[in-house]
Amino acid sequence: MEFTLQQIALMLGGELRGNGQQKVNMLGKIQDAKAGQIAFLANPKYEQYIYTTQATAVIVSRDFQAKKEVPAALILVDDPYLSFTVLLEEYHKMLSFQKTGVEQPSFTGAHFSAGKNLYQGAFSYIGQNVKVGDNVKIYPHVFIGDNVEIGSNTILHPNVKIYSGTRIGSQCEIHAGTVIGSDGFGFAPQEDGSYKTIPQLGNVIIEDNVSIGANTVIDCATMMGDATVIRKGVKLDNLIQIAHNVEVGKNTVIAAQAGVSGSSKIGENSMIAGQVGIAGHLVIANNTSIGAQAGISKSIKEEGQRLLGYPAIDIKEYFRCYAVFKRLPDINDRLRELEKRVGKPESIESNGHA
Amino acid sequence: MEFTLQQIALMLGGELRGNGQQKVNMLGKIQDAKAGQIAFLANPKYEQYIYTTQATAVIVSRDFQAKKEVPAALILVDDPYLSFTVLLEEYHKMLSFQKTGVEQPSFTGAHFSAGKNLYQGAFSYIGQNVKVGDNVKIYPHVFIGDNVEIGSNTILHPNVKIYSGTRIGSQCEIHAGTVIGSDGFGFAPQEDGSYKTIPQLGNVIIEDNVSIGANTVIDCATMMGDATVIRKGVKLDNLIQIAHNVEVGKNTVIAAQAGVSGSSKIGENSMIAGQVGIAGHLVIANNTSIGAQAGISKSIKEEGQRLLGYPAIDIKEYFRCYAVFKRLPDINDRLRELEKRVGKPESIESNGHA
Amino acid sequence: MEFTLQQIALMLGGELRGNGQQKVNMLGKIQDAKAGQIAFLANPKYEQYIYTTQATAVIVSRDFQAKKEVPAALILVDDPYLSFTVLLEEYHKMLSFQKTGVEQPSFTGAHFSAGKNLYQGAFSYIGQNVKVGDNVKIYPHVFIGDNVEIGSNTILHPNVKIYSGTRIGSQCEIHAGTVIGSDGFGFAPQEDGSYKTIPQLGNVIIEDNVSIGANTVIDCATMMGDATVIRKGVKLDNLIQIAHNVEVGKNTVIAAQAGVSGSSKIGENSMIAGQVGIAGHLVIANNTSIGAQAGISKSIKEEGQRLLGYPAIDIKEYFRCYAVFKRLPDINDRLRELEKRVGKPESIESNGHA
Repeated sequence: MEFTLQQIALMLGGELRGNGQQKVNMLGKIQDAKAGQIAFLANPKYEQYIYTTQATAVIVSRDFQAKKEVPAALILVDDPYLSFTVLLEEYHKMLSFQKTGVEQPSFTGAHFSAGKNLYQGAFSYIGQNVKVGDNVKIYPHVFIGDNVEIGSNTILHPNVKIYSGTRIGSQCEIHAGTVIGSDGFGFAPQEDGSYKTIPQLGNVIIEDNVSIGANTVIDCATMMGDATVIRKGVKLDNLIQIAHNVEVGKNTVIAAQAGVSGSSKIGENSMIAGQVGIAGHLVIANNTSIGAQAGISKSIKEEGQRLLGYPAIDIKEYFRCYAVFKRLPDINDRLRELEKRVGKPESIESNGHA
Repeated sequence: MEFTLQQIALMLGGELRGNGQQKVNMLGKIQDAKAGQIAFLANPKYEQYIYTTQATAVIVSRDFQAKKEVPAALILVDDPYLSFTVLLEEYHKMLSFQKTGVEQPSFTGAHFSAGKNLYQGAFSYIGQNVKVGDNVKIYPHVFIGDNVEIGSNTILHPNVKIYSGTRIGSQCEIHAGTVIGSDGFGFAPQEDGSYKTIPQLGNVIIEDNVSIGANTVIDCATMMGDATVIRKGVKLDNLIQIAHNVEVGKNTVIAAQAGVSGSSKIGENSMIAGQVGIAGHLVIANNTSIGAQAGISKSIKEEGQRLLGYPAIDIKEYFRCYAVFKRLPDINDRLRELEKRVGKPESIESNGHA
Repeated sequence: MEFTLQQIALMLGGELRGNGQQKVNMLGKIQDAKAGQIAFLANPKYEQYIYTTQATAVIVSRDFQAKKEVPAALILVDDPYLSFTVLLEEYHKMLSFQKTGVEQPSFTGAHFSAGKNLYQGAFSYIGQNVKVGDNVKIYPHVFIGDNVEIGSNTILHPNVKIYSGTRIGSQCEIHAGTVIGSDGFGFAPQEDGSYKTIPQLGNVIIEDNVSIGANTVIDCATMMGDATVIRKGVKLDNLIQIAHNVEVGKNTVIAAQAGVSGSSKIGENSMIAGQVGIAGHLVIANNTSIGAQAGISKSIKEEGQRLLGYPAIDIKEYFRCYAVFKRLPDINDRLRELEKRVGKPESIESNGHA
């Protein structure tokens, strides 16, 4: 990417102070940006750097009052941080979407249908009857099974594995090593103590605007016609386990290494922290917030709760209990002291309680 | 797959009511099956759907008494659910085993020996001196190191990575992204605070009828001649960690994101729930059941225990303790109140205890 | 590998008793080594095996006194175990480094620069402007993005995925399925409850002598110019989550399935056990030891602490508290008994406390 400052000022609806013909090709931090880069100043505590920065241009607030001479060109905007993220995004989009074409060798099954601007990396494998939208990016080593459909503008990073029958929406991004549609953990115990595998014939449906981190696993549903469903706008981090027949509600965010057991239904707009475990066949209400490492063993019916512990309880209550837990040896001593002073009934003394 | 109803009735030992020449090619749920599909009715609360289903045929119990006209053909059997799972399994087997042949490009090292009906997907990599049995399915992007042996009817899903020297039995299924035989975590501390890598030269042995989920990791044993061993019939879920020199006993089931540290030996017929952690060098008795997120830091000698907590104790005991834990602030208040009423000894009061 | 006993005695600075022209080509355990192998005897309880072993040679202590005839040749050294690990290491090095050359098909982008003895496996993918040192081993299915630099003697096992811009030092080893440089989990909440993706433009820097297990994930930093940093000598196990902008200090060891949240900084020479969770934006002092499954929610300022629990406290303190926790039902009973004997004040009784 390379833009003139004039182009950037136009893009951001900002006012330019300086030479509009200068070009920048990178974003940088104000304290270490170099010539050719553009930085921003939002937090006043970084103001010192604007007087020494080597950046070609700095995005600042419209009410910025320079106390000394500023070496860089300025672009004045309403909200410098917001404007910077707009640039970041543009930059990112350009990086992500600059790749098109089909690298060789790659493998494409019968009846493949793709929209415009497809990128299909070397060593990617596409099964039969696969259909993908416009601008889809399939990085190297991606595996796509038979009968998979993928919406427009979706990015599959290297080595994503999509089992047969999966549906993925538009504007999704799935990071390296993630597996979508593997068999759920279904085994029927037999009389001799062994287990018989229950075939898993459902699929996974991922709606639009879903982001999934690296090395996460989402199992398919058990029965044909059923699906494990990740609703619109869900954000899943790395190394997460989503078991068969789970549903994750709209705009819910799940942090790394959390796990959801089979057939549980997570509500919308919920926040599930790292390493949380959710048991199977539960229903978690909308707007639930679950703290790190908590274990959920019962359905959460009331919306808007914040939970912690195992089994999880109200987070404030958990901390009040834990505060006493940390003084338990003292409490034990005080209880003994009281017993000594009050005396104990015969029956208890004879049981050997001290 | 496509079967006539007559063929299916024969397969299930069922009695056919309807036109035996009709064909079905898919399984479906009674409430939303379409023409060409076969469904089942086992739970009476779904009976309403049998009168409106579009399925071509429904599997029902021999004592089913229709209250209205049924549009579908019927196949009467002793246990409709069981019969349906038999069909599921047949269907699954056909899906799994329909693939044969070698897709190109794939890479095969010297001295490769395979039984009949091999499927070797594109971009799969097979090292030297590899030997696989009949009907083995090696999906795309699978890596198999040197000197690996794999039994008959075993399926390696896309991107499974098998390090050199691994032995895998028959009728095993390993899901996408799983790594078998990576180096154990062995580092010897040096005087300067750094660590020296201890070479890991053992291997992994996986016996027959083992199922392993996606993105799980099983490390090899440390010493040459030693093995990390997964016994017959074990079922491992996704994202599990099995460290070097671990042994998992026959028919034991381990749920997602659990971890077993080096050299621990898990008994037979045990159930280990999700996110459980088991420390190193322990022996866990047969028939042990460990609840979600529990931490095991000592060997379990008595068989048949059910455990929870960290460090884990008897599950009922844990819940009794946790019930009081949730009332600790109240207990603390009551203790203070008692101390106020009884009075405290000088020595404690002077220490500032309130 | 094949060495004469004379060569091995020389390599270990040991004294040979037996025929120096005999050759060994494998290491084995004294109790089951075969002809052509070399074993060691360090622990006296294995002494019995030295009189029956089929090993061609055994490494023993200089002060070993045979009680019977020993069938094998002997190599006498100061510390048999240490000498054996030296051999192990040599053997391992030879195994690891015997592979060189470029297997086909593989994919190499423009401006690739490699030192001597490169191994580049089939189906590996190398992006543009990638630079690697001497003796680098790139196994099959490895993906390396654009502008990546890798030092000498580093091994990337099958299927390692390196995103663009990553820097990896010398003498590093990264196991199968690990992902380096995936996008951090950055999403800005919008007014309508949805999240907007914050582009992640930083990278990952891995210094020298770092080992990383299988299926681990290390996210890139958020801002351009920032990095997630893994310092010299760090050892990471399998299935670990390292979030964006984290720094792991020199020679710190992290066990399997632990997770570190965004922007936290772990000190040097620390030990973090399995399944530990560390919250974001924390600073953990040097020489900290964190026990299995602990949760760290505050910065650790004092060096050398040992911690456990959630939120973690001093490990001995935790065990003292937990010991009382396990007796909470009894404590509750004793408190009630005392209340019965002492009597309760009106105000509390009227609140319904029992």
